[in-house]
Amino acid sequence: MKIDKATRDAFYQVLYARRDVRSEFLATPIEDDVIQRILNAAHHAPSVGFMQPWDFIVIKNEQTRAKIKAGFEQANAESAEMFDEQRKSQYQKLKLEGILDAPLGICVTCDRSRTGDVVLGKTIKPEMDLYSTVCAVQNMWLAARAENLGLGWVSILHDEVLHDVLAIPNDIQIIGYMCIGYVSEFHDKPELERKAWQSRRDVKQAIHTETWSGKNEQAQSSVKSGE
Amino acid sequence: MKIDKATRDAFYQVLYARRDVRSEFLATPIEDDVIQRILNAAHHAPSVGFMQPWDFIVIKNEQTRAKIKAGFEQANAESAEMFDEQRKSQYQKLKLEGILDAPLGICVTCDRSRTGDVVLGKTIKPEMDLYSTVCAVQNMWLAARAENLGLGWVSILHDEVLHDVLAIPNDIQIIGYMCIGYVSEFHDKPELERKAWQSRRDVKQAIHTETWSGKNEQAQSSVKSGE
Repeated sequence: MKIDKATRDAFYQVLYARRDVRSEFLATPIEDDVIQRILNAAHHAPSVGFMQPWDFIVIKNEQTRAKIKAGFEQANAESAEMFDEQRKSQYQKLKLEGILDAPLGICVTCDRSRTGDVVLGKTIKPEMDLYSTVCAVQNMWLAARAENLGLGWVSILHDEVLHDVLAIPNDIQIIGYMCIGYVSEFHDKPELERKAWQSRRDVKQAIHTETWSGKNEQAQSSVKSGE
Repeated sequence: MKIDKATRDAFYQVLYARRDVRSEFLATPIEDDVIQRILNAAHHAPSVGFMQPWDFIVIKNEQTRAKIKAGFEQANAESAEMFDEQRKSQYQKLKLEGILDAPLGICVTCDRSRTGDVVLGKTIKPEMDLYSTVCAVQNMWLAARAENLGLGWVSILHDEVLHDVLAIPNDIQIIGYMCIGYVSEFHDKPELERKAWQSRRDVKQAIHTETWSGKNEQAQSSVKSGE
């Protein structure tokens, strides 16, 4: 099937409008069919050896979310201590999660033994099942944006908290906990860029030609043509 | 910005049409502005602490690709030996890469020390920088599909081959090597599903409610309503 230009541009509109959301969540409930659509989008991610190693725990219960929030608070206090004094003070002012604000949490896990011991495509790089599950997260994230839902990935949280609170077996690996909800607004730029925590790298710096040390010829020609 | 229904549906059209391509690549050259667009899409992935740890090595040189292909052949022969006899014979019949067929290769890497030793969001889960880079891969993969380009992730390859052939510093982590090109067709289903290597899991099996052992209520209500 050929994707036409209008469809391509619509796709890019969603991709560039996606944000990591922490502060703008609304309590508005999310319709079940919308939740089903973002999970189905996640489930149609690529996976190594087609092993589809992901699972999704859908959490609405407020007490459950309060326990996860407590886990965040502890991990966040630990984390603050790792920064130097100036950064620490800036760090402590940032809101880094919306666990109780967002009405929905989705914990994404990876079953590393799914489909057996030897998995096509994982024989040389065993981490490929984890990476497949991250592809599912990114599909979900973009689908959420297409549904006008904000999503924030909470990574400041010990895996053990999620194992305990959600009764996840020890051999199932935690990939992440996502806060999901409708939002008051989507910002134009990432929060950490707006708040001057870190600036956007020029994409040209990320592009190498033929080898690691290869100059970025495309960037150079773009500069020449005044793009 | 509110995404309207037509834009949402266009997004889903791209998402569900994406495939892992190995066999259908055409030699047709890819326009530089198209390459630039898929790299820019990758660069706009979410990243932990906004560290943007990714780099992209753009490879067109055929000799370079021949060296990478040789690396694949070796890793693939090693891999075949890991399967039992029946699976091994089936495995050896599969075409698992398009390194020489596709005119473009992109090696995606992760600089784990970018932006310093302590990174917001990576304090508790150090693997988050790798996961951010995988999000960039998935953005690139979907953008490629929106541009009618096939992409196949080659994971049957030792990292050392890419480090050597592309002169990538040892402290830069390899995420993957992507084959990219226009294609004769996109299949409706994943190749490993079509070839009966592995079947599609029912999404309902992947969805848990409130805890790991929680029944999937949405799935049950869907069954009841005959969906």
